[in-house]
Amino acid sequence: MADGTVSDHKPGEIRRTFSTLSTGQDQNGVVQPLLTDLYQITMAYAHWKSEKRTDHAVFDLYFRKNPFRGEFTIFAGLHECLKFFNNYTFSKSDIDYLRTILPPSTEEGFFQYLSDMDLSQVTMYAIPEGSVVFPKVPLLRVEGPLPIVQLLETTLLTLVNYASLVATNAARFRMAAGPGKSLLEFGLRRAQGPDGGLSASKYCYIGGFDGTSNVLAGKLFNIPVKGTHAHAFVTSFTSLDDLKNRMLQPADQSKSLQNLVEMSQTWLDRIEGLLEILKEETHKGELASFISYAMAFPTGFLALVDTYDVLRSGIPNFVAVALSLHDLGYKSIGIRLDSGDLAYLSLRAREIFTKIADKYNLPWFAKLNIVASNDINEETIHSLNQQGHSIDTYGIGTHLVTCQRQPALGCVFKLVEVDGVARMKLSQDMEKMTLPGKKNVFRLYGHDGHALVDLMMQEKEEAPSPGQRVLCRHPFEESKRAYVIPASVEPLLKKYWFEGKICQPVQSLHDIKSRMESSLRSLRADHKRALNPTPYKVSVTAGLYQFMHDLWLHNAPIGELS
Amino acid sequence: MADGTVSDHKPGEIRRTFSTLSTGQDQNGVVQPLLTDLYQITMAYAHWKSEKRTDHAVFDLYFRKNPFRGEFTIFAGLHECLKFFNNYTFSKSDIDYLRTILPPSTEEGFFQYLSDMDLSQVTMYAIPEGSVVFPKVPLLRVEGPLPIVQLLETTLLTLVNYASLVATNAARFRMAAGPGKSLLEFGLRRAQGPDGGLSASKYCYIGGFDGTSNVLAGKLFNIPVKGTHAHAFVTSFTSLDDLKNRMLQPADQSKSLQNLVEMSQTWLDRIEGLLEILKEETHKGELASFISYAMAFPTGFLALVDTYDVLRSGIPNFVAVALSLHDLGYKSIGIRLDSGDLAYLSLRAREIFTKIADKYNLPWFAKLNIVASNDINEETIHSLNQQGHSIDTYGIGTHLVTCQRQPALGCVFKLVEVDGVARMKLSQDMEKMTLPGKKNVFRLYGHDGHALVDLMMQEKEEAPSPGQRVLCRHPFEESKRAYVIPASVEPLLKKYWFEGKICQPVQSLHDIKSRMESSLRSLRADHKRALNPTPYKVSVTAGLYQFMHDLWLHNAPIGELS
Repeated sequence: MADGTVSDHKPGEIRRTFSTLSTGQDQNGVVQPLLTDLYQITMAYAHWKSEKRTDHAVFDLYFRKNPFRGEFTIFAGLHECLKFFNNYTFSKSDIDYLRTILPPSTEEGFFQYLSDMDLSQVTMYAIPEGSVVFPKVPLLRVEGPLPIVQLLETTLLTLVNYASLVATNAARFRMAAGPGKSLLEFGLRRAQGPDGGLSASKYCYIGGFDGTSNVLAGKLFNIPVKGTHAHAFVTSFTSLDDLKNRMLQPADQSKSLQNLVEMSQTWLDRIEGLLEILKEETHKGELASFISYAMAFPTGFLALVDTYDVLRSGIPNFVAVALSLHDLGYKSIGIRLDSGDLAYLSLRAREIFTKIADKYNLPWFAKLNIVASNDINEETIHSLNQQGHSIDTYGIGTHLVTCQRQPALGCVFKLVEVDGVARMKLSQDMEKMTLPGKKNVFRLYGHDGHALVDLMMQEKEEAPSPGQRVLCRHPFEESKRAYVIPASVEPLLKKYWFEGKICQPVQSLHDIKSRMESSLRSLRADHKRALNPTPYKVSVTAGLYQFMHDLWLHNAPIGELS
Repeated sequence: MADGTVSDHKPGEIRRTFSTLSTGQDQNGVVQPLLTDLYQITMAYAHWKSEKRTDHAVFDLYFRKNPFRGEFTIFAGLHECLKFFNNYTFSKSDIDYLRTILPPSTEEGFFQYLSDMDLSQVTMYAIPEGSVVFPKVPLLRVEGPLPIVQLLETTLLTLVNYASLVATNAARFRMAAGPGKSLLEFGLRRAQGPDGGLSASKYCYIGGFDGTSNVLAGKLFNIPVKGTHAHAFVTSFTSLDDLKNRMLQPADQSKSLQNLVEMSQTWLDRIEGLLEILKEETHKGELASFISYAMAFPTGFLALVDTYDVLRSGIPNFVAVALSLHDLGYKSIGIRLDSGDLAYLSLRAREIFTKIADKYNLPWFAKLNIVASNDINEETIHSLNQQGHSIDTYGIGTHLVTCQRQPALGCVFKLVEVDGVARMKLSQDMEKMTLPGKKNVFRLYGHDGHALVDLMMQEKEEAPSPGQRVLCRHPFEESKRAYVIPASVEPLLKKYWFEGKICQPVQSLHDIKSRMESSLRSLRADHKRALNPTPYKVSVTAGLYQFMHDLWLHNAPIGELS
């Protein structure tokens, strides 16, 4: 309850591991082989007809540009990809449907091929979920029979793209707010439908949020859920006459019931001078709603104070009820501001709470939680920090879950090798070139533990060693190269799927969140700053550079300059 | 197949009505009472404790501003709201979970109350799904016991917000492209996860798209699915040696198999002069991939021509294969462009197709379908229209499904009445004021069939009549008012949910799409134009105006001007 809202999920009471979610109540019932683009199926048929079904293909899943004008990305969605692999089967009803959309000439053998398909011949390497990742580096490397691996493209992209985007956005909000603040995700109502909301809750938690308002996300993923009340709750009361129950049991159960309405009115009398208001000014429907809420949640009282007038009505009403609760042995939590000038109002609120704390010798009153939640984006938080404010907790919805600043991450899934022969798609745009062939990736760290550079190489090349000098080249620009002597070396790609099974220990959401935190810590501050961050270097070995550029020349059509 | 892609869903072969989707395989298994914000549950408990469980509340669901700097919105998501109502039950596992997150002091009676809860006492009025709608007008009016209706808020918002946003976006793309073009939704990989993608496919179809690439959306919603092949398919072939099957059966089944590889090479010889290329220039891996695809889909041949060089390789290879297919009795579909200058390349492609049509007397060749699909947004289409182009079909992904220009619609759910007494939330910002009380809404039409104005009134007021003069006032600005004599009057709110049942005929997706088309047609062109559209007028009667402003004065706290 430290965040000032009614409820924490009590860890341990419902033990639901992340991995057991693939059965039973699960948001991702729709993740199945048909959740794909039709062209994946038509390509599979053409490959099948061309007898390419045993060609051994290697695909890389990567993105070309970090989102949000930043210089890092948090990789998320891997666990969902593994669940998708684990459950990969075309049902009879899928096959029946495909018969209706493919041409009548489609051969029966192809439908049988799909019916029999499984991923036992597919191998997937991945960077661990929650890692900080960079452009061009494969997040997933998927190998296996060409038509089968091609079929996986769209679903893998849909599972990785939004997950990584929103986790990155959450991490940026966390960095803006600083480690001392609470961050709550309130985005369900503005997400891309029900599952968009659930995905947002899960991946924002990974990215550094403390909880969500989404109850189902709490239930499914064991994430803390938080919440208080809305304006409608306040306006549902018009006067103190609306209160039928007025008696509250003090915290000390041996004491007798007390009339919370009378106590609150008395306190309003006592504080009107101190708060420089007239007690008649405070809205009595609002006071009634606060009392009603306090009766229901005496240990979790947090009031939304901006329905009428924050300083003349909301805060005085809150203070009166909170002091009454204190007389009965209960500590209140705080207030929520959902409109107006959040910097000014939070400072004024803190001033009032401090006055009360001093006057009545209640030091905890000065530390009441102030929650702010009005259409907040990353820039709002930076601006609040500059102005000075007294907000403890941010509730963030729209801008977080829709990633308003950049609502899509452009991961792609590119064929890089068939039967041991490297492939690449040429492009006029150098940034769009594929890095061909099966590659390994290493992260090189300096003596201070910070990541220096990511280094891609051909699979046959020897891994870099700590203390050994290694040449790191820019993949496309000939003049950019540097020798690096790493203090330590981390192989980024690990084998996650092999012979039809997940072959790494399943990570809980909390494990992934921890990895995100440690991985982000290993990144130098200048790569992470909000304004003009320094790009992190992604490089290739001299061997891979030469190989790529030879292949590029070999593949380019012979033309004339025009 | 008119759109130039492999497959149309054949209507009738799978008859799956929209309404049967609530059972069985359905994307919205996650739509359930716990898909809500925690504060809805805590408010319900406070209301329950305050003995307000039988208070009769009226809530309006509406938005304050049209999206995309436009002046209209398409209302969508109603059918999903009705399915949510129909299935509304707290399961035992839900209650068990809530016990772990609510304070131990929560009374047992409340959990029993939730367990017993159903929506038999709730009534919902709505504007028909697919209608053009405007700010401030209630899209839904939900009435019933206060705590129960309050509990519905978040889920209704999450079902309406994105659905209406993306349907509106789709309608804008349709208007930009014009009625003669095909529009295909390709957004699955960039949507907010799996269900974001499914919702996008469904509501883009309602909003005016012709089909989707998303196979599962096709299966679940009976939407046409479309698709061809990707760059990876092209790069998966390196030379003609990759083709093991080379023989194709002509359309006339009595004829003998022909070697499509040899035919295509011969055609490449014959056209090199006409196309001003060297046949050695065309990429032979690309040619092999086109032949492979044509062998699999001789009646649906559409080639992605930009893997290497559109004019020197992709189009010549396509033409050679298409002419070979023609010799065998098959008509090809066309090409897809996924990079480069789409206006220029489409015009050049059309020029080449026309040359071929003239030279070989094949008029259909000049009309081949040109599909464009590279990161297209609404402005791209307007710009293409200005430049001149020859694109027939647009495949649109990221910008469509993420609604990049404005990724959230801000629908709200506001309490407007309790036990017959109107409520309103005051706000410093006039646009944020609630219109209090239970209201009816009428759309007034002129003699030419165009909508003139939406008029809200108190429930007790008499409906406007055709031919009768009625005063329409701006809800907040005193000086803005006008008399209107409507030629016809449409009551917008219809009763959809009453006594625990859906009480209107269930609309199919196709019905909703038709309604969108006719409703949008009834809107004057100047309200719909892309640049500086005229705002459509939303008004209140003199009676409602007076009532609102009295209530406003009555509710405002007495303060000093500061």
